[in-house]
Amino acid sequence: MIPVHLQPESHVPLYIQLRDQLRALVNTGDLRPGDRIPASRELAVQLGVHRTTIANAYAELESEGLIRGHVGRGTFILEEEGDAAKPQPALPPPAVNGNLRWESMFADERGEESLSRLTQAAPRGSISFLVARPATEFFPIEDLRNCTNAVWRREGSEILQFGSSDGYPPLKQVLVSMLRGEGYEAADENLLITDGCQQALDLLCKAFLRQGDTVVIENPTYSGTLAILAGARVRVLGVPVSTESGPGTTPGVDVSAIEAVLMQNRVKMIILTPDFHNPTGTTLPVAERRRLLDLAARFQVPIVEDHIYARLRARGERVPSLKQLDRSNVVIQIDSFSKIAFPGLRVGWIVAPANVIERLRLVKQTTDLHTGQLAQAIFAEYMRRGLLTRHLERTRKAYSARLCALELALAKHMPHGTKWTRPEGGMCVWVELPPGFDASELLIHVRERGVLFSPGRYFYLQNPMPNTLRLGFSDVNEREIVRGVAILADVLRIEMRKRQRGARRAEMPRVALV
Amino acid sequence: MIPVHLQPESHVPLYIQLRDQLRALVNTGDLRPGDRIPASRELAVQLGVHRTTIANAYAELESEGLIRGHVGRGTFILEEEGDAAKPQPALPPPAVNGNLRWESMFADERGEESLSRLTQAAPRGSISFLVARPATEFFPIEDLRNCTNAVWRREGSEILQFGSSDGYPPLKQVLVSMLRGEGYEAADENLLITDGCQQALDLLCKAFLRQGDTVVIENPTYSGTLAILAGARVRVLGVPVSTESGPGTTPGVDVSAIEAVLMQNRVKMIILTPDFHNPTGTTLPVAERRRLLDLAARFQVPIVEDHIYARLRARGERVPSLKQLDRSNVVIQIDSFSKIAFPGLRVGWIVAPANVIERLRLVKQTTDLHTGQLAQAIFAEYMRRGLLTRHLERTRKAYSARLCALELALAKHMPHGTKWTRPEGGMCVWVELPPGFDASELLIHVRERGVLFSPGRYFYLQNPMPNTLRLGFSDVNEREIVRGVAILADVLRIEMRKRQRGARRAEMPRVALV
Repeated sequence: MIPVHLQPESHVPLYIQLRDQLRALVNTGDLRPGDRIPASRELAVQLGVHRTTIANAYAELESEGLIRGHVGRGTFILEEEGDAAKPQPALPPPAVNGNLRWESMFADERGEESLSRLTQAAPRGSISFLVARPATEFFPIEDLRNCTNAVWRREGSEILQFGSSDGYPPLKQVLVSMLRGEGYEAADENLLITDGCQQALDLLCKAFLRQGDTVVIENPTYSGTLAILAGARVRVLGVPVSTESGPGTTPGVDVSAIEAVLMQNRVKMIILTPDFHNPTGTTLPVAERRRLLDLAARFQVPIVEDHIYARLRARGERVPSLKQLDRSNVVIQIDSFSKIAFPGLRVGWIVAPANVIERLRLVKQTTDLHTGQLAQAIFAEYMRRGLLTRHLERTRKAYSARLCALELALAKHMPHGTKWTRPEGGMCVWVELPPGFDASELLIHVRERGVLFSPGRYFYLQNPMPNTLRLGFSDVNEREIVRGVAILADVLRIEMRKRQRGARRAEMPRVALV
Repeated sequence: MIPVHLQPESHVPLYIQLRDQLRALVNTGDLRPGDRIPASRELAVQLGVHRTTIANAYAELESEGLIRGHVGRGTFILEEEGDAAKPQPALPPPAVNGNLRWESMFADERGEESLSRLTQAAPRGSISFLVARPATEFFPIEDLRNCTNAVWRREGSEILQFGSSDGYPPLKQVLVSMLRGEGYEAADENLLITDGCQQALDLLCKAFLRQGDTVVIENPTYSGTLAILAGARVRVLGVPVSTESGPGTTPGVDVSAIEAVLMQNRVKMIILTPDFHNPTGTTLPVAERRRLLDLAARFQVPIVEDHIYARLRARGERVPSLKQLDRSNVVIQIDSFSKIAFPGLRVGWIVAPANVIERLRLVKQTTDLHTGQLAQAIFAEYMRRGLLTRHLERTRKAYSARLCALELALAKHMPHGTKWTRPEGGMCVWVELPPGFDASELLIHVRERGVLFSPGRYFYLQNPMPNTLRLGFSDVNEREIVRGVAILADVLRIEMRKRQRGARRAEMPRVALV
């Protein structure tokens, strides 16, 4: 019998637990080349899990070249190719005139799975709620082509040469106008152009954080924030986000919990998405924003406000941003064209006090000299022509309709016991399955039927709720939304029935034995 | 008398030393608001330096708001505005409901001066040898406009949406073809697209280095390498680069010194530019490359080969790259379009073993998701049409002519005792002034006459030679090269004469006293 112990209550999906434990047994030599491992049916019974769980784990190990199944004979541990499966010594062996052992040289362990890998695995033609991204069908190619031609003709030489680390001046100018129009007291010196919000986070880490510093984030949060902070080797404290709304409850990050953390820890930075939070879609009420700003000023902690979704309001009343409310100059706002326009061009910006921008400029220079100037010049031209405002208006309406369609479909199809958030904008809805369901396991079945979503666990720093998932709705049309949710609900019902049968069967023998 | 002590033998220019010491005296309270400081003539006599040195230091302090000169009355320490001049306490003061003290929150001290600041200070119309960059007048705007239109029409939607962290597939494909044509055994899995070599260095630091790790570099080297390693908080060891050529001498980095370093230190990475090294222009001979590769394999240390200038050979015979010679899979090659084509678009690439690329892909994703796709698609189209090869041929010829013009001008104008390197390509020549001259001081006078260059000190990790400077010749036409060198030589002669007079004057009293 194979010594494997699965923990159903863990946030790690069962098939991942199984895969990793089997791999470990090979590495320690408990399983050796040629050894036969149990058939999936057999092991499912032994471990008390569904057969798909075993099949998924075996499929992964087979693709890694660790095992192979032979029809009629069973599944066997393979001969090792090279030293891949052997445990690596802590130091490379001395003076072998051979290939470098690169794996032993990386600075960090990296998670093997990431959300992006899930994306790549999406079969063609699936209905994908996986990502929060703009709708491809609204991309205004001809408008952009015209803007680009104007840019090449007018300023071609300039954009091809090395540029400024703080950004291409014409883009900075038109962004300053936009911000002033929105009530920000921003000037050129308050603005740094980035390659998008992911890079903004990288630059802020480099400018402010040292190994071991403490950072407060929302839990759950954008997985790119988790990844960059892990790379920066800082201490990350997660504060819960309430997804309940209605009388007596306050949606969004728990500001009282932030206060408690600030009183007990020397915090270097707070990173938040107050508007249409990714992944939950919640928006922090204005009173909570004011409390948060008071706290930040009192404890002298900078707040990084991720503003990337804020212009995508679908309904309800506009809430002023933290930066707009900020009287104590504690807020750094990061923003981007990636959600409101075209992510593939990779242009975003940071709004901050001038001395912060000056420091970030030096960091940006060290990181990649400057952001590509053709893309910057195109955005400048596109905005000057008033086209961004028009595009934003158009897509906002479309996303608003999609959000409505999604909510209707969820209400119509999802089984009792399923809950979801009611965002006032943004690109995603957060779903809570009935307790005990694992969204990662569910995804395996849903994917077979051509539907994809993001399991909630990718967004958690700690205390993951395995029964949560994120539906990105902005790049899925209404017809697909309806069909996708129907399939999701159908699979969920099937799994619920299986579970009920399983529970009954599990009861039966016990009854028989009495 | 003001307690200032200048060290002429230091690599820090005298006016910077003076500026910093005066600022320190204000910070410690030795100089107080309202105090009069000596006139520049007076202080020059006291310190035994040229009056310009004092004037430069005062100008900097005045622009910082620390002192002000009043005609006829003298120069005074100003009232402090805010707390800017006060020494900062180690911790921010508790619970003031006011502005954040951002300066106290940055993770690092950053050098106040950088090469880029010098660039910005360049007066319009000057002859600038400051940067190593492609010639603006050869930028093929119309070709690029045509390529861009084709790209928008064919693949507009695709390039506007989020893309792959390892790069836009069509660009990877055409780069793989190019590399194979050059004899590299490269496939798609060996290639990662970056925003250029500066970003490649950032990604490599993140993937391989932890705080305190040891990295070997050339001394002097590209200032961007120094900056990124400083930010990564690693231990950096510099190995000298020989700029001598001729019988019995080996140009380029001292491979025996690298061996000695490897024997005494656990080195995590070696970063080198074997072809047309920036700033010296030297090329490492093939025998030394082989020795280096043997060392890297023996000590199991990865070599990062900066290949950015290698395709810009002006004369002499091609030397195979480290990556081409690499039998032990120890080389990571970083490369870019920035010198051979158009830096403003920010596209480069890394060639490495597949498992290294896979790791770098994850790091790239965390850093900025991916490189802008419009720029990538334009380069792919430009290369597919055979235009890059043509452009490279054309600019290589032009740079070759400029290099000849520069060498002729140096030979004709520079005073006896000045030396310079004879690069076989690339974008810069390294000049050694007669001993005792400080290129930073010289720049002050040369700039007044409309000529700019980079003082050598920006490129040194340690043991800087203050009498060195770099002439970037690729973006200066031949007429300007001749005029610029003549002015440089003229100013140098004037300074030499001043120095001789000063020496004679200094001797005279001594003689009279005997």
